[in-house]
Amino acid sequence: MTAHQDDSMLGRARVADSPELTAYYGELADLEAGALWTVANKIEPWYPQPLSVPVLWRYAELRPLVRKALDLVKADDAGRRVVMLVNPGRRDVSAAAGLLYTGLQIMGPGESMTAHRHQAAALRFVHEGTGAWTIVDGEKLSVGPGDFAITPNGTWHEHGNEGEDEPVIWQDGLDIPLVNALDAGFYEVHPDLYQQPRPIRNESVLAYGANLLPYGADKWTRPYSPLLAWPWEPTYQALRNLAKTTEGSPYDGVIMEYTNPVTGGSVMPTMGAHMQLLLPGQATKAHRHTGSVVYTVAKGRGASVIAGQRFEWTKGDIFCVPSWAWHEHANLDASDDACLFSFNDFPVMRSLGFHREEAYPDNDGHQPTG
Amino acid sequence: MTAHQDDSMLGRARVADSPELTAYYGELADLEAGALWTVANKIEPWYPQPLSVPVLWRYAELRPLVRKALDLVKADDAGRRVVMLVNPGRRDVSAAAGLLYTGLQIMGPGESMTAHRHQAAALRFVHEGTGAWTIVDGEKLSVGPGDFAITPNGTWHEHGNEGEDEPVIWQDGLDIPLVNALDAGFYEVHPDLYQQPRPIRNESVLAYGANLLPYGADKWTRPYSPLLAWPWEPTYQALRNLAKTTEGSPYDGVIMEYTNPVTGGSVMPTMGAHMQLLLPGQATKAHRHTGSVVYTVAKGRGASVIAGQRFEWTKGDIFCVPSWAWHEHANLDASDDACLFSFNDFPVMRSLGFHREEAYPDNDGHQPTG
Amino acid sequence: MTAHQDDSMLGRARVADSPELTAYYGELADLEAGALWTVANKIEPWYPQPLSVPVLWRYAELRPLVRKALDLVKADDAGRRVVMLVNPGRRDVSAAAGLLYTGLQIMGPGESMTAHRHQAAALRFVHEGTGAWTIVDGEKLSVGPGDFAITPNGTWHEHGNEGEDEPVIWQDGLDIPLVNALDAGFYEVHPDLYQQPRPIRNESVLAYGANLLPYGADKWTRPYSPLLAWPWEPTYQALRNLAKTTEGSPYDGVIMEYTNPVTGGSVMPTMGAHMQLLLPGQATKAHRHTGSVVYTVAKGRGASVIAGQRFEWTKGDIFCVPSWAWHEHANLDASDDACLFSFNDFPVMRSLGFHREEAYPDNDGHQPTG
Amino acid sequence: MTAHQDDSMLGRARVADSPELTAYYGELADLEAGALWTVANKIEPWYPQPLSVPVLWRYAELRPLVRKALDLVKADDAGRRVVMLVNPGRRDVSAAAGLLYTGLQIMGPGESMTAHRHQAAALRFVHEGTGAWTIVDGEKLSVGPGDFAITPNGTWHEHGNEGEDEPVIWQDGLDIPLVNALDAGFYEVHPDLYQQPRPIRNESVLAYGANLLPYGADKWTRPYSPLLAWPWEPTYQALRNLAKTTEGSPYDGVIMEYTNPVTGGSVMPTMGAHMQLLLPGQATKAHRHTGSVVYTVAKGRGASVIAGQRFEWTKGDIFCVPSWAWHEHANLDASDDACLFSFNDFPVMRSLGFHREEAYPDNDGHQPTG
Repeated sequence: MTAHQDDSMLGRARVADSPELTAYYGELADLEAGALWTVANKIEPWYPQPLSVPVLWRYAELRPLVRKALDLVKADDAGRRVVMLVNPGRRDVSAAAGLLYTGLQIMGPGESMTAHRHQAAALRFVHEGTGAWTIVDGEKLSVGPGDFAITPNGTWHEHGNEGEDEPVIWQDGLDIPLVNALDAGFYEVHPDLYQQPRPIRNESVLAYGANLLPYGADKWTRPYSPLLAWPWEPTYQALRNLAKTTEGSPYDGVIMEYTNPVTGGSVMPTMGAHMQLLLPGQATKAHRHTGSVVYTVAKGRGASVIAGQRFEWTKGDIFCVPSWAWHEHANLDASDDACLFSFNDFPVMRSLGFHREEAYPDNDGHQPTG
Repeated sequence: MTAHQDDSMLGRARVADSPELTAYYGELADLEAGALWTVANKIEPWYPQPLSVPVLWRYAELRPLVRKALDLVKADDAGRRVVMLVNPGRRDVSAAAGLLYTGLQIMGPGESMTAHRHQAAALRFVHEGTGAWTIVDGEKLSVGPGDFAITPNGTWHEHGNEGEDEPVIWQDGLDIPLVNALDAGFYEVHPDLYQQPRPIRNESVLAYGANLLPYGADKWTRPYSPLLAWPWEPTYQALRNLAKTTEGSPYDGVIMEYTNPVTGGSVMPTMGAHMQLLLPGQATKAHRHTGSVVYTVAKGRGASVIAGQRFEWTKGDIFCVPSWAWHEHANLDASDDACLFSFNDFPVMRSLGFHREEAYPDNDGHQPTG
Repeated sequence: MTAHQDDSMLGRARVADSPELTAYYGELADLEAGALWTVANKIEPWYPQPLSVPVLWRYAELRPLVRKALDLVKADDAGRRVVMLVNPGRRDVSAAAGLLYTGLQIMGPGESMTAHRHQAAALRFVHEGTGAWTIVDGEKLSVGPGDFAITPNGTWHEHGNEGEDEPVIWQDGLDIPLVNALDAGFYEVHPDLYQQPRPIRNESVLAYGANLLPYGADKWTRPYSPLLAWPWEPTYQALRNLAKTTEGSPYDGVIMEYTNPVTGGSVMPTMGAHMQLLLPGQATKAHRHTGSVVYTVAKGRGASVIAGQRFEWTKGDIFCVPSWAWHEHANLDASDDACLFSFNDFPVMRSLGFHREEAYPDNDGHQPTG
Repeated sequence: MTAHQDDSMLGRARVADSPELTAYYGELADLEAGALWTVANKIEPWYPQPLSVPVLWRYAELRPLVRKALDLVKADDAGRRVVMLVNPGRRDVSAAAGLLYTGLQIMGPGESMTAHRHQAAALRFVHEGTGAWTIVDGEKLSVGPGDFAITPNGTWHEHGNEGEDEPVIWQDGLDIPLVNALDAGFYEVHPDLYQQPRPIRNESVLAYGANLLPYGADKWTRPYSPLLAWPWEPTYQALRNLAKTTEGSPYDGVIMEYTNPVTGGSVMPTMGAHMQLLLPGQATKAHRHTGSVVYTVAKGRGASVIAGQRFEWTKGDIFCVPSWAWHEHANLDASDDACLFSFNDFPVMRSLGFHREEAYPDNDGHQPTG
């Protein structure tokens, strides 16, 4: 709050309590009404007041508990065997940050889940294991570590692990809290419990994996990407190529967005996703923006300062940046790249006209930390 | 919940409690984590489970309390002197339905408010009084009973009543709860406290009030309508004209949307507004859709059945339809039109791909009302 | 051509003829080939070199000949009884300017035409007569002097005059030369020769004539306006209202575009239309732009300077401005408004990225007319 | 012309000549007017009547003449040393088909051209030579055989060959005839005659060459692709991948469009481009559509039937399909792929609402070839 942001100033609500008003408030409550001035300053804050706080979840700590779930619950009973990451400020809605949900799902060798669909959109980022597959509206996709895949809203989907030895652990990202906040959630179990996939695996990757559009793309009218998966290798290669031309954003380094190839827009209408590369030793400047972000360390080690708090991270760790929190990232390795995968609600911010962004003005762009 | 919507079926979470699991949940909580299956069925419901309930607020009951506020609080202390209508299920966020806020604002003769702006978008529907004015980004607008006006997100605005005898009561509609749910709220008091309006009143109505676009309209790039007000008379006339060609929607009768003339879209990116006309004796069929609606009776008298509950209404009354609630409307007057003004969050539903709608399948489209 | 636009400079084709080259050109011609440098400077001019020239057609001169057609040819033999206005530079394609066609159509009392449809888009501006009607895809429209109406590409249409005494003369505007230049013309005679119109006349005017959108407008997906006619009176009133707020464009005065209400764009994808008002004595400054325009004097009298040539006009006169020609307009009446209707190919220019515009830089914006 | 397409039927112009009419036509001509019915059937044809005819240009025949130009004219005198391919029906506008221009440009070892820009859009497809480069708005691109590159409208560009031994021959495609038909042509020689390229070559390929969008792509607002070149190898690989999932279009086989990655649309607003693969022995069915196409054989050998005329082709050959001409393609090699590069005016057809397409209805989709 700056000098110009004072709740006692003219233009803000500053009505003192009185017995008369107390009685009046009671009369209003009897009619399912209230006096705006009793809540105005709270519901019209000077700037965003997220309930979410910055959190870092260490993969090394989470992993044993995730693996333990394999023994504790059957997949068929759990629906999906997922350890969700819950922001201390958003326990009421099971969100990791803002209205975004995330969790780590584990599937044992040979295991598979039943098919369902829901209004909520989902995305996956694979942490470990080589046998993972997912079927999305009849397309069977194989995904491995570092791969990104989507399950757009309303698509039938089911998952499994066809590996023989190792479990798969992948991270789910969903907009469930957003869907619920807007009273828009629907859920269906597949009438046959399982889909019959088409014969060719990864067909959307074969058709849309390059920078050309296949025959029929002009007939695609759904509000999400027909391309359903982005393997790690070409994604990392794209970042390396981009790094030859630019140092990238001052706040994010060399960053690319996974996009819907038929529109150039975000992969789904409610969530976007990026992969970013920090060169050895690179440290970005701080900025803040509306919209919440969940980050996953895809490669390397580094540190991020979020709202003045420093978090060191290494591969597999997950952390979040709440809306309007200052944040900056650094690669702590002097010789190797660091890569951060992230997903966000930026498409919502842009669609609704809520996007705002500003650079940290002081100290050459870096927040003081303690 | 239908036969196919049973939480004990394969595909839903159905893990029984055990001491082992209880211990496990504690370990997870220590890491700011949790087991998805403990909340999955709740956060992924079969269909929307709004916290909002249908409510009708009677103008005859509210009006005395609204007028009382004139004596109880000074406008300069209240910020704005508003009695807000609060859904019993959304008291935590001061919403009338879903993530929509509404309230009745009163301004005494000669009174005026200070100027501010905020991320939240606002709209006005005038109930009574002839001296109301508002200044929106320098355009001074005079508005009277039945008129609809907007204060798009981020525009400087201030209001007043230049009448000499009577107070003005108008209804505000805002997306404050939505803005807060998305951690995107900003607020500023005008540095000069008051705007200097341009000399011509209602200039956007003069420029954009017909079905042609003025010079310069192709340069308008803001995400909301450059036309800021829609007076009652031509709006009612438009409905009467439309009624000559159609009985309108089976669910809404002869209904028109206030639109942004440069795009044909909704007036603002987060809220839409309609005026609808029910012919004497007309009764619509029931449907339901995602998205919340706040209705105000602009003319006549009638009844609506919402989620099986019947509400009789007359001019000035306000009622709400929560997301996915069945609803149908009837004009109870045999000889005069009834008109309902309404505002909604449909633009959000459409932008995010959340729009869904269905007709009431039984009983010739009418809900039983017990 | 400025000092920097010299065909003898490096960067332009400047190959001298030689016997060797002449022989070479013959060899190329044998293979249906040629040497670019022999035509390069012609086909890549420094700036547009329209074949069209400025022309003014006087209604007083045309009218007797148009009326004469009534006696000379039967409507059923002519298809439509139209005197077309042909630019001396575009006789090969029957264009009035650029790739725009215009003509004056006359229909005797009680006469009607057969129905057809074509790829070309058409528009009408009524000069005289009170009994004119047109049926467009089943909607019967009555149109009178000063009214503007459209027949979008691909719509079935037929016309007639239900007056008892006077012929109707209206002006047609079509994009026939454009359609032919792009080899895209189709034509069909209605299988029943005549349409059966729906019972309500002017239904699109009743539904879309105000600045609100009727029920169902969100389902309109055709590339043209669902509103098919704009009567004179409200159009003129809209200009008068706009004139209270602005002097309008320095080049066009108080000008409004007829628009597609569901998009805010031009009424059809290949032609746009405007009505403009020049206040008593008002004289605009000169500018030029890509795109061709055909003007019709709807009210009053004045003069336009086009490419340095002065044309005086009065009600009913038609004149054209070729692409990239300087032009400016003046109302020569000291006490009454002058109004110019116009149609153009600006939508084509904008869709293809060809729009360019500049102000006349000298002499306070006015061309010398020597 | 079918049974229903008879110029003597009611609904078509069928006015017989008479001395009276001849005199009348003279009177009209004196006023720069004419009678529509004298040209109506010609300018409103039943279906498109292109002046262009199907043509195949054999690379083996053209190549010697193209190489001869190297000796006959200096690049600096020619502007660009190009043998253009001229449709016998469009000699007046130097078009290869419809309003599309194409030519073969040759640059000797070490040669370079001066920089210019123009309203016309250009594209390149490299036939032979390894040293070709082009600078487009400061980006230097190296291009080799099979590569596709664009020079969008209004971009500064210059070309050269840095090879030491061999000339480069590439094919230019431009929309010059379209630009001229619309009176929209502008041309400028670069004030410094040569651009200073930025240090990194092929930077747009590095930044946009994958299926992700780099930092800053959301700020790209120009109406064409920021990606300027598509090398042959990944393009061919993309077709091979796509061929694993589909036989492609019945009319085109496995076909992909080069697209603007930030919109998913065509690479430029006036021209689109495709690469298509015909499997060994594959023969497509015939269809026809509005819009003109120029094909270049990128790989293999085959035959196309165009408007009933059969053309055998091999690598390097160029042929055209006029608007609305039936066409089908066949790979005549039993063991190797054939690839056709093509460019077209489809973006114009779509923008203006002129796109129409139909399948050949008889003989299992194949044209008789007499």
